[in-house]
Amino acid sequence: MQRICVDMDEVMADTLAEYLRRYNQAFDEEVTPEDLAGIDLWKTAPVDRQRQLRAFLDAEDFFEVLDVMPGAQQVLQQLSTRFEIYIATQAMVIPNSLGPKYRWLQRHFPFIPPAHYVFCGDKSILRADYLIDDQSRNLVSFEGQGLLYTAPHNLAVTGFLRVNNWEEVAAYFAGIPF
Amino acid sequence: MQRICVDMDEVMADTLAEYLRRYNQAFDEEVTPEDLAGIDLWKTAPVDRQRQLRAFLDAEDFFEVLDVMPGAQQVLQQLSTRFEIYIATQAMVIPNSLGPKYRWLQRHFPFIPPAHYVFCGDKSILRADYLIDDQSRNLVSFEGQGLLYTAPHNLAVTGFLRVNNWEEVAAYFAGIPF
Repeated sequence: MQRICVDMDEVMADTLAEYLRRYNQAFDEEVTPEDLAGIDLWKTAPVDRQRQLRAFLDAEDFFEVLDVMPGAQQVLQQLSTRFEIYIATQAMVIPNSLGPKYRWLQRHFPFIPPAHYVFCGDKSILRADYLIDDQSRNLVSFEGQGLLYTAPHNLAVTGFLRVNNWEEVAAYFAGIPF
Repeated sequence: MQRICVDMDEVMADTLAEYLRRYNQAFDEEVTPEDLAGIDLWKTAPVDRQRQLRAFLDAEDFFEVLDVMPGAQQVLQQLSTRFEIYIATQAMVIPNSLGPKYRWLQRHFPFIPPAHYVFCGDKSILRADYLIDDQSRNLVSFEGQGLLYTAPHNLAVTGFLRVNNWEEVAAYFAGIPF
């Protein structure tokens, strides 16, 4: 059985929406995902906001309350009958996220066993046939077939097979023979 | 650079010693590691003790207070100049261990970057050249060269390249060309 690794943030979970919710509330702004085309909010934020931005992510509840990306549950459930599904998430830069991410996966993706969770940093460690990820740097170091999941920050990135939503993920794998 | 994955429990950390400390205290016994040759304490414990055994592992402090295996720090520090060192630990059956394991690694192995921590379940997900592990089932599913790190429970296991201590790990890799 072929194996698919799936990133969490911005692929399974709408991390950006929650981040912007807290950002806009804290700084009384109205930044939208559309405003962030090609932009990494983290890197472009003024220096005096950096500590607060980090505090958003360190908050115990942040990674527990994220919305599920539309279609992710249904498509992954279908794919799990034909492929081994592993979750591969960069959790090590925010160790507070380890527990919340575990609980979020159990709640929203109960059909994926915890033995298939991989909380890591550098994704070159993954042995799998496919990796769906919004970070092109993760796809570069991955040795299988990468699929770049569209997010505002990667809109200008080229050179990768791109999927814009979970419908397109389903369509891509429908074309992969058993 | 070739890559070595290293298991934590019973390889880097003396998990069994702490486990027996709590076991003997709770049940007023004097079980020693030598008593456990070929035995998995978890599986052989009476049913009425199973819940308490699990509680040992679930305790917030359990995985933080483990002793480092003799030589692990020195040998891994030396090896890290010639190999990429990744830590690969089964953390998903005891999610309470995620934070403590992270902190333990930072405290005792500060020269290994968190980006090289892999908290996983099934170790067939690892892409690496070597895996040092005390569980033979992890070596079976690993596609590189496995090294079975001796622990009481695996004394009778055959068919694997075996290392009895960190001195032998150092000697093995001293024989691997650059």
